[in-house]
Amino acid sequence: MNIALDMMGGDYAPLEAVKGISLFLAEGGKNITLTLIGEETKVKALLLANAIPLENIVVVHAAQCIDMHEHPTKALREKQQSSIAIGFNLLATGKTDAFISAGNTGAMMVGALFSIKAIEGVTRPTIGAYIPRENGRLGLLVDAGINADCKPENLTQFAILGSLYAEHILGYQNPKVGLINLGEEEGKGNLLAQAAYPLLKENKHLNFIGNIEGRDILINKADVMVCDGFTGNVVLKMAESIYDLAKRRNINDEHFDRFNFEVYGGVPVLGVAKPVIIGHGISKDVAFKNMISTAQRMIEKDLMQKMKDVFEQKG
Amino acid sequence: MNIALDMMGGDYAPLEAVKGISLFLAEGGKNITLTLIGEETKVKALLLANAIPLENIVVVHAAQCIDMHEHPTKALREKQQSSIAIGFNLLATGKTDAFISAGNTGAMMVGALFSIKAIEGVTRPTIGAYIPRENGRLGLLVDAGINADCKPENLTQFAILGSLYAEHILGYQNPKVGLINLGEEEGKGNLLAQAAYPLLKENKHLNFIGNIEGRDILINKADVMVCDGFTGNVVLKMAESIYDLAKRRNINDEHFDRFNFEVYGGVPVLGVAKPVIIGHGISKDVAFKNMISTAQRMIEKDLMQKMKDVFEQKG
Repeated sequence: MNIALDMMGGDYAPLEAVKGISLFLAEGGKNITLTLIGEETKVKALLLANAIPLENIVVVHAAQCIDMHEHPTKALREKQQSSIAIGFNLLATGKTDAFISAGNTGAMMVGALFSIKAIEGVTRPTIGAYIPRENGRLGLLVDAGINADCKPENLTQFAILGSLYAEHILGYQNPKVGLINLGEEEGKGNLLAQAAYPLLKENKHLNFIGNIEGRDILINKADVMVCDGFTGNVVLKMAESIYDLAKRRNINDEHFDRFNFEVYGGVPVLGVAKPVIIGHGISKDVAFKNMISTAQRMIEKDLMQKMKDVFEQKG
Repeated sequence: MNIALDMMGGDYAPLEAVKGISLFLAEGGKNITLTLIGEETKVKALLLANAIPLENIVVVHAAQCIDMHEHPTKALREKQQSSIAIGFNLLATGKTDAFISAGNTGAMMVGALFSIKAIEGVTRPTIGAYIPRENGRLGLLVDAGINADCKPENLTQFAILGSLYAEHILGYQNPKVGLINLGEEEGKGNLLAQAAYPLLKENKHLNFIGNIEGRDILINKADVMVCDGFTGNVVLKMAESIYDLAKRRNINDEHFDRFNFEVYGGVPVLGVAKPVIIGHGISKDVAFKNMISTAQRMIEKDLMQKMKDVFEQKG
């Protein structure tokens, strides 16, 4: 198993990525090759400084870096030697099995969609986000902001992809899927939610529990919470702001601490053919460690094949 | 000035309404007649029991009551003797100057739209919601859930109505208007937000500050936060749930206490020709007191005329 990591992506790169690798290895990451893509001298110096054993590590030099604010398509096309372009090239050609980056989200999405491509049958791949819940277990919000305008069919696909992720990676048996809506009763909602409800209800791959409201998002009602990316993005950023709010009010509480999104890193692009994980720009060491573990689990569980199986059945 | 109050609406009616009146009068509500609509014997007994001076109080008997879960149009048509039907009748015929109820929201909306009607030029009246912000001053979210699907022009009208309310009732000079969106830059968003942005920017009645994200909602970035009612409802209910969360975690904090929506009651239907205030079902005494004060302020400031003036100019 070979997991590639963009060492130049994120606000705290490459140091926090190196520290994340250190944490991952300390917890016994075995039989895994880590391919680290970035400025070779800098990366090697940091590996040395952090006393990281080099036996299962390959450093691939990247002469360029795509900045957080560059135009995704343009940057990917023009910067062939960037860590993100190299990462997708390695993944597409089968030299690595997964690619992780906390860099330019747009460039990562473009790379995932055009170098790796969607699973056949998936109209719109999606990105989810973890949502801390009161029972201490994470919920999954899909879509978290990639698909601002959605059709009802998109929501069903997000739900299926999210459900498979929740089952095989987060470990929920028969994960409960809720449709984020403005009321509980069937028939409520905007046109999108009204049309999505029966599709979700009838889908045999889903354990659909019905509508969930804004007040249900932070509790344990649904494991997978489905909505368009506009709503999802507002919900996610509002949830993130709760942590800052609590910190500014000097509130120290185990549950409110779970709103510290620095530790979650990111969840994979769901619906593309190979494991691609886009981390939050604020990712710190724990986030990088978690993303490597997630990629490992996705490969071990062969999540991609499980997704392909479901979408093949439908065709 | 004659303000009518539905004594039968809300989870804690009529007791909390009576207690709210008591608070309002204790704070010196002068030169105001309060018209209390509800079950006469019950209301009068509670007024007596709460030692409320009766000089400026008129009790109007309502033999019927519209339940929280009744179908709005059907209930209003069939229950002509309900407190809500009587309330709208009094307001429409000019016998009262404002109507407040914490009862069936749908019936209140139907009554407002059909008995009182929209201000000329307003395509879709809206309901806002207060959002607690860190500086202790309330923000106004419009739409809070009445208009699930919106056109860009609707958002501009919500912004104008919200702005006038924020200026004259909440006391913000030149209130800052933000468009709730998934990114800060102009051009970001779903189709609705992308199309609404230039309309908001060009509107001469608005102090438009641009896009605001989910993380900005609970801070002091914008005084008036505009979005479709689907997004607004999810945001509002998520904000409400923060209070319950904090209470369950035994967190006592001045700011988190502001998320106790029981005290806010409700904000008016904005864009109808006369003051109609729909309270939250969970309204307690302070909420009722606040709603009466809001109605009083709306009448004193002649907010309806100010709204009419703006929409007339546009025609």
